[in-house]
Amino acid sequence: MPELASREEMEARLTAAVAAVEPLDEAARAAAEAELAAKTKPRGSLGRLEALAAQVAAVRGSGRPGRLRAAIVVAAADHGVAAEGISAYPREVTAQMVANYAGGGAAVSVLARRCGARLLVVDAGVGGEYSAASVRRLGLGAGTANLARGPAMGEAEALRAILAGVELAQELAGEGIGVVALGEMGIGNTTAASALAAALLDVDPRAVTGPGTGLDAAGVVRKVEVVRRALSVNRPRLDDPLSTLAALGGFEIATLSGLAIAAAAKRLVVVLDGFISAAAALVAARLAPAVSRHLVAAHLSPEPGHRLVLDELGLDPLLELGLRLGEGSGAALALPLIDAALAILDEMATFGEAGVTDAGR
Amino acid sequence: MPELASREEMEARLTAAVAAVEPLDEAARAAAEAELAAKTKPRGSLGRLEALAAQVAAVRGSGRPGRLRAAIVVAAADHGVAAEGISAYPREVTAQMVANYAGGGAAVSVLARRCGARLLVVDAGVGGEYSAASVRRLGLGAGTANLARGPAMGEAEALRAILAGVELAQELAGEGIGVVALGEMGIGNTTAASALAAALLDVDPRAVTGPGTGLDAAGVVRKVEVVRRALSVNRPRLDDPLSTLAALGGFEIATLSGLAIAAAAKRLVVVLDGFISAAAALVAARLAPAVSRHLVAAHLSPEPGHRLVLDELGLDPLLELGLRLGEGSGAALALPLIDAALAILDEMATFGEAGVTDAGR
Repeated sequence: MPELASREEMEARLTAAVAAVEPLDEAARAAAEAELAAKTKPRGSLGRLEALAAQVAAVRGSGRPGRLRAAIVVAAADHGVAAEGISAYPREVTAQMVANYAGGGAAVSVLARRCGARLLVVDAGVGGEYSAASVRRLGLGAGTANLARGPAMGEAEALRAILAGVELAQELAGEGIGVVALGEMGIGNTTAASALAAALLDVDPRAVTGPGTGLDAAGVVRKVEVVRRALSVNRPRLDDPLSTLAALGGFEIATLSGLAIAAAAKRLVVVLDGFISAAAALVAARLAPAVSRHLVAAHLSPEPGHRLVLDELGLDPLLELGLRLGEGSGAALALPLIDAALAILDEMATFGEAGVTDAGR
Repeated sequence: MPELASREEMEARLTAAVAAVEPLDEAARAAAEAELAAKTKPRGSLGRLEALAAQVAAVRGSGRPGRLRAAIVVAAADHGVAAEGISAYPREVTAQMVANYAGGGAAVSVLARRCGARLLVVDAGVGGEYSAASVRRLGLGAGTANLARGPAMGEAEALRAILAGVELAQELAGEGIGVVALGEMGIGNTTAASALAAALLDVDPRAVTGPGTGLDAAGVVRKVEVVRRALSVNRPRLDDPLSTLAALGGFEIATLSGLAIAAAAKRLVVVLDGFISAAAALVAARLAPAVSRHLVAAHLSPEPGHRLVLDELGLDPLLELGLRLGEGSGAALALPLIDAALAILDEMATFGEAGVTDAGR
C-alpha cells in the first residue's frame, strides 16, 4: 500500500500534473509536414498516415521523432455495479483475465508481442484473487461500490487512482517509452463508461449504452435503466469532472485518466482503445483540455457511446473493424500504423535524393 | 527475353492456371472459427480480425495456418496513354520510381521493411532507363500503345504478361511465401484502370475516373474524355476479359492479373492495394471467378472507381485512410493486420487453458 497523502497534497499533485500539459509544438508539426511534402510521392497521397506523422511530431516536439517505443497499459478493476447483472460475464472474470494478460494468453498479450510493445498489466482494484507476479498492484482497493446505489468511489479514492496513473506515465516516460496505449478490463465497466459519458456529454443514457461484451436486447434495456438510476442517485455529486469520475467511474478508468494527463505532459502519444478508454480520456480532457491534442483514436467499436465520446474529443478513429473486446487490443492494432507513419517520415527519400521529377502536386 | 511461346501454348497455360484455382477449404474455415470461439474473449469480439483469420485458414487449407511470410510485388510499366496528358507526373517518373523502389527510398520500400515483407520490384514494361540490378525485368516491352487511339496491347502481348505473372506467383509460392500483395506503378495507369473498370462493370467513365496522383478538376474532365474515347475506339475488341485487358489495360495490370490467378491456385492470400490492383484482380476474377475468395482488400482509396470494383469483387476494405499512392503502400499497411489475425488464432489461450469462466456469449 502506498503511503496515504492528504486530500490537499493529492489535489496539489493533480493541479501540477494538469499544468504540466503543454500545447503541441506547431513548429515541429510544420517541419514534419515540409519533410513529408518533399518525399517521393504525390503531396498528401499517404492521407491520414501523413497527418498522423505530423501529429506525433507535434506531440514529441521534433520534426523527426524517429522510431518510438510503445507500451500498452492494461488497467483492471472490479465494479460494484456488476451486482446489477449488467454484464454477460461474472465478476470473477476480471481476476481471471488479469492472470491471462500476465500469462501471455489474452488477445492483448498476443498483439503486444507481435507489434513489439511492452505490456504493463495494472491491478487498479481487482477484487478476486489471482497469482501473477508481473502484475503491478496499485493498492487502490478491491473494486468500486455499486454506482447505481451511490457513488462508485469517494473523491479521495478517485484522486488516488488518478495519481497512480500519473506515476505510471512518469515511470514509462522515464524508461524511454514514446507511445502509450490505454487498455482496460473490468466486468461491468462499460456501464461505468456509459454513465460517465451520459453525464459528461449530457445525453440520454440510451445514446451511450450498448451490449458491452455481449448483452442481448433485454440486457441492454436493463443496463440503460441501471445507468439512468446511477445518474439519478448521484445527481447532486456531478458538479465537476473529478466528482463525476468518483461517482460514476471505476478505479481503472480513473487510473487511465491520470495516465493520459501525465503522458501528455511528458510528450507521449496517447493511443485510445475502445469506449472505456475513450471515457477515461474524456475525463482527462475535462480536467486538462490540452490532453486531447495528444490523443490518437485507434479504432471505432460498435458500442454506441464510442463515436459520441470521440466526436467530443475531436478524434477520428484510424480503424473500424467491429472490435469490441477492449483490453487494449484495438490500440495494439493501431501501433503498427503509428510506426509506419514515423518510418515514412524518417526513411523515405525526397525527390531530390532519389532523382525523381517532382510535379509539385 | 524469354523464348516466345505460340498463342496456342500460351492459351493452354492460362487455361491450366485458371483450372488450378480451387474453391476455399470450408472445413478449415470452420475449424478456425471453432478455435476462435474457444479463445478467451467474448465470441466475435475481435470483429473483422476473426473473419480475416478464418478466411486465411480457408485459403491455406488449414485451421491453423501459423505465421505466413509475405511478399509485396510492385509491377511497373509505362502507358502510351500518358501522351494524352492525363497524369500530373511526366512519363519519365515510372523508371525513376522503379530505381527508387529498388533503392529503398520509396514508401513501399520503407513499409515493406517495417512489416518484414519481401519486396519484389518487377519491370513489366518500363520505357525509360534506370539502373537497379535487383529489379526483375520481364522483357515484355517498353510500355503499351496509347489506348485512346487503339488497343494498348495485342492479345498475345497481354497473354505473355499474364503468364509472366503466373510464373512469379509460382516462384513465390515455391519460396514459401503465404501472402502476396499486389503493388503497381506506371504513369497513366489510373486511366487504364478506369477504362478497364468502365468496360468490365459497364458503367459510365465518370463513375470510375478520378484525380489519380493529383489531377485538378479540369484534368479529371479531360481524363474522363480520354477514357470515353478509349472505350469508343476499342469497342469492337471488348468481347471477353482477355481482349478487354489487352485493349484497355497495361503490362503491369496484366502481370498482376496473372499473379493473382496463380497465387490463388497456390493457396496464397492475395492482398489488393488501391484502384489499379483492384482492376487487375477484377480481370483475374473474370478469367477465374474462384480467385475473388482468395482476395483481401487492404484499403479503400478516394479514387471513385475503387469502391465499385471492390463491391463487384464482394470485398470490404480493411482500412480507409485516404491513401492514394499505390505501389503497394496500402497493402503493406494491412499486412500487420493479417499477421495479427493469425497470431490470435495461433497464440491466444482458450477459456479452458486459461481457467477463465466462459459465459458462452
